[in-house]
Amino acid sequence: MKPKSQIVNLPVYKPGKPIEEVKRELGLEQVIKLASNENPYGSSPAALEAITRELVNVSIYPDGSSTELTEVLANHLSVEPSNLIFGCGSDEIIALITRAFFLPGDENIMADQTFSVYKSNADIEGAVSIEVPLKDGTHDLTSMMAQINDKTKAVWVCNPNNPTGTIISEQELTAFMDRVPSHVMVVLDEAYYEFVTDEAYPQSVPMIERYPNLVILRTFSKIYGLASLRIGYGIARPEVIDLINRVREPFNTSRFGQAAAKAALEDQAFVQECAERNAVEREYLQNEFTRLALPFFPSQGNFIMVDLDMPSATAFQSLLKQGIIVRPGFHVYPTYIRVSVGTSEQNRAFVTALENTLAEKAVARP
Amino acid sequence: MKPKSQIVNLPVYKPGKPIEEVKRELGLEQVIKLASNENPYGSSPAALEAITRELVNVSIYPDGSSTELTEVLANHLSVEPSNLIFGCGSDEIIALITRAFFLPGDENIMADQTFSVYKSNADIEGAVSIEVPLKDGTHDLTSMMAQINDKTKAVWVCNPNNPTGTIISEQELTAFMDRVPSHVMVVLDEAYYEFVTDEAYPQSVPMIERYPNLVILRTFSKIYGLASLRIGYGIARPEVIDLINRVREPFNTSRFGQAAAKAALEDQAFVQECAERNAVEREYLQNEFTRLALPFFPSQGNFIMVDLDMPSATAFQSLLKQGIIVRPGFHVYPTYIRVSVGTSEQNRAFVTALENTLAEKAVARP
Repeated sequence: MKPKSQIVNLPVYKPGKPIEEVKRELGLEQVIKLASNENPYGSSPAALEAITRELVNVSIYPDGSSTELTEVLANHLSVEPSNLIFGCGSDEIIALITRAFFLPGDENIMADQTFSVYKSNADIEGAVSIEVPLKDGTHDLTSMMAQINDKTKAVWVCNPNNPTGTIISEQELTAFMDRVPSHVMVVLDEAYYEFVTDEAYPQSVPMIERYPNLVILRTFSKIYGLASLRIGYGIARPEVIDLINRVREPFNTSRFGQAAAKAALEDQAFVQECAERNAVEREYLQNEFTRLALPFFPSQGNFIMVDLDMPSATAFQSLLKQGIIVRPGFHVYPTYIRVSVGTSEQNRAFVTALENTLAEKAVARP
Repeated sequence: MKPKSQIVNLPVYKPGKPIEEVKRELGLEQVIKLASNENPYGSSPAALEAITRELVNVSIYPDGSSTELTEVLANHLSVEPSNLIFGCGSDEIIALITRAFFLPGDENIMADQTFSVYKSNADIEGAVSIEVPLKDGTHDLTSMMAQINDKTKAVWVCNPNNPTGTIISEQELTAFMDRVPSHVMVVLDEAYYEFVTDEAYPQSVPMIERYPNLVILRTFSKIYGLASLRIGYGIARPEVIDLINRVREPFNTSRFGQAAAKAALEDQAFVQECAERNAVEREYLQNEFTRLALPFFPSQGNFIMVDLDMPSATAFQSLLKQGIIVRPGFHVYPTYIRVSVGTSEQNRAFVTALENTLAEKAVARP
C-alpha cells in the first residue's frame, strides 16, 4: 500500500499535554494555559444556551449547508450567502483550498515565520512552499511579490500574523493586491481580526468585489470563544466558494458548532467587551516587557511574541514548573516565546513567573 | 486561479430540506424523517451529561489526539491506542485515506451501488473508480477481485452495505482478504456494525493482525446517536494509522464529540437496547413489505431498501405530502426507496402512508 511519496516524511502533530496531566506530573494545584490564543473569558452565554437547546437533536445530522448560520453571518458581514463557506475550524478551509486548487509542483508563497498549516497542506498536495522571511516580524510583501511567477498558485498573508501579532495595513494590502496576477490566489487569514485596534488595518470583506482572487479566512475559535467546537469560515467570490465546496464533506461542521456560532454572532456586545479587555491587557503585558527590557513585536492579536534571550525550550520548562504554559519553538526566533493575552489575574501571575525565569537565567549566566 | 481539473465537474452536495421548512411549506404539524439512518432513540443520557459537563470548556481547544477517548475505545475493542484514528465522522477518515494514499490514475474498486463518498474522494484525487454491480443487492467479491490489478490502490466493502443493508459473511471476507494482493488496501466500512444480528457477520477487528492492508471504519453517528457531533473512527495497523495521521488536521474532532463518544461507549446497555429494538422494528417493516408484496433486500442495518414499483421520486413526493421523509434516487434501483427503521410509532405511521402511496399508484395505473 504505497502512500503519496510527499506525505511519508511529514511530521505527525504532537499535541501539548492536557492541563490535568501537567498538574499531576508537576504536583501543581493551578495551571494557567497561555499557549493557544483562546478567549480567557469563555464564550457568550447565548452560545452556551444554544448548545443546551440542541441537546434534544444530538442524534440528528447537522444541516449540511449551515443555512441559518450562513444567513446570520451574511447579514453581519453584508455579503451574500454564496460568498461563504464553513469548515471544521478555518484549518479545514486551508485544507480544502489546497485540495481543490493545488497540483504537484505548484508554488506556494508564505511568510517565514507564520501559521504552519499553510505549508503542511501544500506539502500534502506535492506543492513547493517558498517561505519569505518576515521583516521586523511583519510580512514583507515586496519580497513575496518578487517570488511570484507562472507556477505560483497561492500567497498566504496571515494578518495579524501568527505568531508575531504584526499587521499589514489596508494601503499595503491594496497596493499588493493591485499587483498580484489574477492566476494567483491570495489567502488572507484573519483569525485574529476582531482583536485589532489599529485603524490602518484593512477592511477586507468589501475587497472581494474588486479582487476575484482574494479569499478571507476567519474563525469562531478565537474572540468568539468556540475553539472546542471547531468552526471557522471563508469569504470569497461565489465562483471560488463553489469550487472549494466541491471538495467539502457534506457534514463537516457540527450541529452544536453551527448553533453556538449563530448565537455568538448575535451577541456582538460580548465580542466588543472581549476586544476591549484584550487591548487593555495586551498593553499591560507590553508595558511589563518594556519594564523588563525584553524586546517584543507590537501585537494586534490576543498574543505577544517576546524575546527572553534564552532558548525558548528552557524558558518554557521554567514557566511550566511555575504552572504557566506558553508556546516555545519558533524556528526563526529561537529565543522568543509566544504568550496569549489572558485575564488580568492570569497576566499578573505570568509576569511574576517570568521574573523568576529571568532571575534563574541571571544566576545561570552570572 | 486554476483548480484541479478533476474537481470542476464534481457535484456539489445538495442537502435535504430542514424539517421545519418541510412543515411550513406543506402545512404539516408533524414530519417523520426516516431518511438518514439516525438513531430514533437519541443517545445515551450519559452522552448528554458529558456534553453539559464540557460547557465550561467551550473556549478551549479539544485534545488533538483524543487521549481519553482513544484509551476507552482501545480497551473496548481490545486493540492498542496506536490502532485508532478519529475523524469528523467516518466520512473524514475516507477523505484522509484518499488524501494520504491516492495518486492520479490509481484504480479504486467499489460496489455499484454503495456509499457515494468513496467515489467522490477518489475523484478529487484523480483516481479512477471501478464500480462493480452488486449481486442480489450484495457485494460481489468475486467480480471485485477480478478487477484488481497493479494499478489498484483500494477496494471498499461497505458491510452492511449502504443502501441495500446486505452483508458479506466472515467466511466470504476471509476468503477475499486471503487473495487480495498486499499492495491493495481493503477498507471495510462498518458504520452499521452494531445493528447486525446475523451470526455469519465478520468479527473484523482481530483481522487487522492477519491483514496489514485492512482498514476498518466505524462511527458514533448511527447506533450511538451522535450524528450531530461528527465523530467516527478508523482501526488498522499502527503503520497505516501513522500514515493517515500525517494528513489529519490537529483539531479535527470537537471537545464535545470526544466527551460524548467516551460517555456513549461506556453505556453499552443503551447500545444493546437500541440494537434489540431495531431488530424487532426491522422485522416488523420487512413483514409489512411481504404483506404488501413489495420486494426488499434483507437488511442487517437500521434501514431497508424496498421496491415500490414506481419512480422513487414519485414515491418520495407522495410520502413527503403525508409528512414522511425517506431517501429516493439510487441510480441502480430507480424504483426503490431506502427507509430508516424508526420507532414503533414512526414505522406504523410510515406503513399507513405507504399504503396510501401504493393506492395512489393503483389509481394512476388502473
